[in-house]
Amino acid sequence: MVAKFSVMRKCAQTGARLGRLETGPKTIKTPCFMPVGTQGTVKAVTVPELQEMGTDLILGNCYHLFLRPGVEIIARHGGLHSFINWPGALLTDSGGFQIFSLGGLRKIDDNGVSFTSHIDGKIHFLTPERVTRLQNIIGADLAMVLDQCPPYPAEYNEVKTAVKRTALWARRCKQAHLRDDQALFAIVQGGVYEDLRRQSARQLVEMNFPGYAIGGLSVGEPKELMYAALDSTVPELPEDKIRYLMGVGSPDALLEAVRYGVDIFDSVLPTRIARNGRVMTSRGYLSIRNSVYGADLDPIDEDCSCQVCANYSRAYIRHLLNAGEILGLRLTTYHNLYYLDRFMREIRAALAADRFKLYYKQMSPRLKQLYGGVK
Amino acid sequence: MVAKFSVMRKCAQTGARLGRLETGPKTIKTPCFMPVGTQGTVKAVTVPELQEMGTDLILGNCYHLFLRPGVEIIARHGGLHSFINWPGALLTDSGGFQIFSLGGLRKIDDNGVSFTSHIDGKIHFLTPERVTRLQNIIGADLAMVLDQCPPYPAEYNEVKTAVKRTALWARRCKQAHLRDDQALFAIVQGGVYEDLRRQSARQLVEMNFPGYAIGGLSVGEPKELMYAALDSTVPELPEDKIRYLMGVGSPDALLEAVRYGVDIFDSVLPTRIARNGRVMTSRGYLSIRNSVYGADLDPIDEDCSCQVCANYSRAYIRHLLNAGEILGLRLTTYHNLYYLDRFMREIRAALAADRFKLYYKQMSPRLKQLYGGVK
Repeated sequence: MVAKFSVMRKCAQTGARLGRLETGPKTIKTPCFMPVGTQGTVKAVTVPELQEMGTDLILGNCYHLFLRPGVEIIARHGGLHSFINWPGALLTDSGGFQIFSLGGLRKIDDNGVSFTSHIDGKIHFLTPERVTRLQNIIGADLAMVLDQCPPYPAEYNEVKTAVKRTALWARRCKQAHLRDDQALFAIVQGGVYEDLRRQSARQLVEMNFPGYAIGGLSVGEPKELMYAALDSTVPELPEDKIRYLMGVGSPDALLEAVRYGVDIFDSVLPTRIARNGRVMTSRGYLSIRNSVYGADLDPIDEDCSCQVCANYSRAYIRHLLNAGEILGLRLTTYHNLYYLDRFMREIRAALAADRFKLYYKQMSPRLKQLYGGVK
Repeated sequence: MVAKFSVMRKCAQTGARLGRLETGPKTIKTPCFMPVGTQGTVKAVTVPELQEMGTDLILGNCYHLFLRPGVEIIARHGGLHSFINWPGALLTDSGGFQIFSLGGLRKIDDNGVSFTSHIDGKIHFLTPERVTRLQNIIGADLAMVLDQCPPYPAEYNEVKTAVKRTALWARRCKQAHLRDDQALFAIVQGGVYEDLRRQSARQLVEMNFPGYAIGGLSVGEPKELMYAALDSTVPELPEDKIRYLMGVGSPDALLEAVRYGVDIFDSVLPTRIARNGRVMTSRGYLSIRNSVYGADLDPIDEDCSCQVCANYSRAYIRHLLNAGEILGLRLTTYHNLYYLDRFMREIRAALAADRFKLYYKQMSPRLKQLYGGVK
C-alpha cells in the first residue's frame, strides 16, 4: 500500500496513538502538525528552515495551484516536490473548502462546482474527476477527495445533502485516481450533527480509503461542538488507517483531538497570526507589537529552544514588525511553527513512554486556559 | 589604531588595491560591498544567510535607528551588534544623506539640522556632536561624521557651502568622538566640481581620520561625472587609509571605482530591486516577473553558485512574486547579495593574482553594456 500507516503504540486509557505513516521512502511520525503551504511555499519560511524544525509533511492546495501558476508548469518541473524543492512528504488538499468559502461566487450540483477565480474573474468548472486528475499531475504523496464543506451554522438538511454529495464524489474521485504512488484520502463531513457524522464516516469507510480526514470542523463552531463531532466520528474510522483533522492548529484543540485518536493536523493559524505579530508561548499567546515589549530583552518564550528565542529579544522583533521589516515576519513565523512542532514531539514522547494520560491531565486544563478562549 | 587598514597588494597599472581592514578581532577583506541594514536588518535576510554568503561588514543608519527604536533600547542590549545578533563588522552611517533627502522638512545652519520625523512628525535637532554621541551609543565598529550632502544638480555656491560646513562638522564630530573601539570616518563632498572635491578631500585629510568616504555621488548624476569626481578625489586621499564610496552597488560602477582605488561600497540597489523582482545575472538585469519566465525551468543565473540558483527555477520564483509570497522576496534578495559578494570576491582574486588590469579590460566593456545604462 502506498501510504502504509502503523500504530506503534496506543494509549490504554484514551484513544491517542503513536504512529508512523510511510509513503515511499518518506516517514511521517504521528501525531504531527503539518504547516500549510497553500501556494507552493509555507509562508515566509524556506525548505531548510522547515527541515531544521523537524517537519516531515507539508500541505499544498490543488485549487490555488490550479489557478496559479497552473498545473502544466508544475508538471514540467516533474511535480510539486521539485517545483518547490521539498524532499519531504507532501499532501495536497483538493480545495473543496476554498471553493465553498467563495460563497456567491460558485454554483454546485451533483456533477461538480463552477466558480469564479478570485485572481482574474475567469469561470472554472471542477468535477471530482478533474480535481483528482489535477492532484495526480501535481504529484503530492497524499491527495484529498473533493468534498462539500458546509459553513457553520448550517441547517440539518443542508449538511445532509453535503454528506450525500461528499460520498458520491468520494467514490468518483477514487475511481478517477490513477497514481499508485499517491494515496487518496476521503473526507468525513456531517457538521455538528452526530448522526450525519457517523453516516458520513460509515459511507466512506465502506469504500476503503487508505486514510480518512475529518472535515467541516474548525469553521466557527464552539470547540465543545468540535470535540463532540470527533467523539461521533473517530470511533467509526478503522483503527489501522490514518486520521487527519483539517484546519486545527490551536494547542488546546490539538491535544484534545489527539486524545480522541487523531493523527495529523493542518492549519494556517501559526503562520497567519505570526504575520500579525502574535506568537505562541508556554504562557499563551503574546502580541509582540504591544508597547510593553518595547524594551523587553527577553526572548519570545524563555522555555523555547528555537533559533529565534536563542538569538533575538522581544524588543528587537517588535522593532522589526513596527518598522515593516520582512525579517520580523520570518522570525515570528519560524517560532510559531517550531513551537507547534515541539509540542507535537512532546505528545509523541509522552505516547512513546506510555504516559500520555498523565501528560494530558497536566496539560489539558492549562492549554484550555491559555488557548481555549481564543480561536 | 582601531581600524587598521593594510594594502596587501596594489595593481601596478591602475589605482586598484587589495586590502584588509582590521577592527578589533574582525577582518574585512577589501574591495568589498557592504549590504545595507538601515533599520537594524538587511531587508529580508537573516544573519546566518549573510554569513553563508561571506559578508564581512554590514551597515546600519544612525538617523533611522535614532528615530526607531531609539538608541536607549539598543544600548540596553549592549549595542547594535547584540540587538541584531550580528557578530561581524558593522558601520553606521550618520544619516546626513537621509536628513538632507527630507527636503522641505528640515532646516540647516552651521550649528546643526532640525527636521521633522518621517515616522511621527516630531521635530528633532541634530548637531555633529549629538550624531557622534548617538553613534557612540549604537556602538558599531565604524561610524561616519555628519556631513551636508547637496542634491544633483546643485549650484557651485551651494556645493561650496556644503563643503565648508562638512569640514566644520567633521572637526566637531572628531572632537566629540569618545570611543576608542570605534573608528570615525570623514566624508568628502564637492558634488561634481573638481576643485571642490579636491578642496574637501584636502581639508579632511588634514584632520587625519582613520578612513575617508566619498559622499554626494550616486545621487542622480551621469556615471561619467561620478567617475570624474573619483578621479579628482581619490588622488587626494592617503594611500594608507581605507576609502569608501557611498551609495554605489551597480556592477559596472563598482569595477570602475575599484580601478580608481576605492575599497568599500554600500547601496540599497541589490536589495531594493530584488523586492521588485529584478535580479542581477551574468547577462545583466532580469525582471523575473516578466511573463516569458512563466514556464522557464532555468535558474536565475546559470553561472551562479548560490543556493537559490542551485534549487529554484525562474518559473517558481516568478510564481512566488506574483502570488505575493514573502519567500519570493527572500530568494531574489539572497541571490542579488550573493551575486555582488561573488563579484567582489572575483575582483579580489584578480588583484591577488596580479591580473586586475586584464580582468578590468575584459569585464569593463561588458558590464558597462549590461549595467551601464541602468541606474
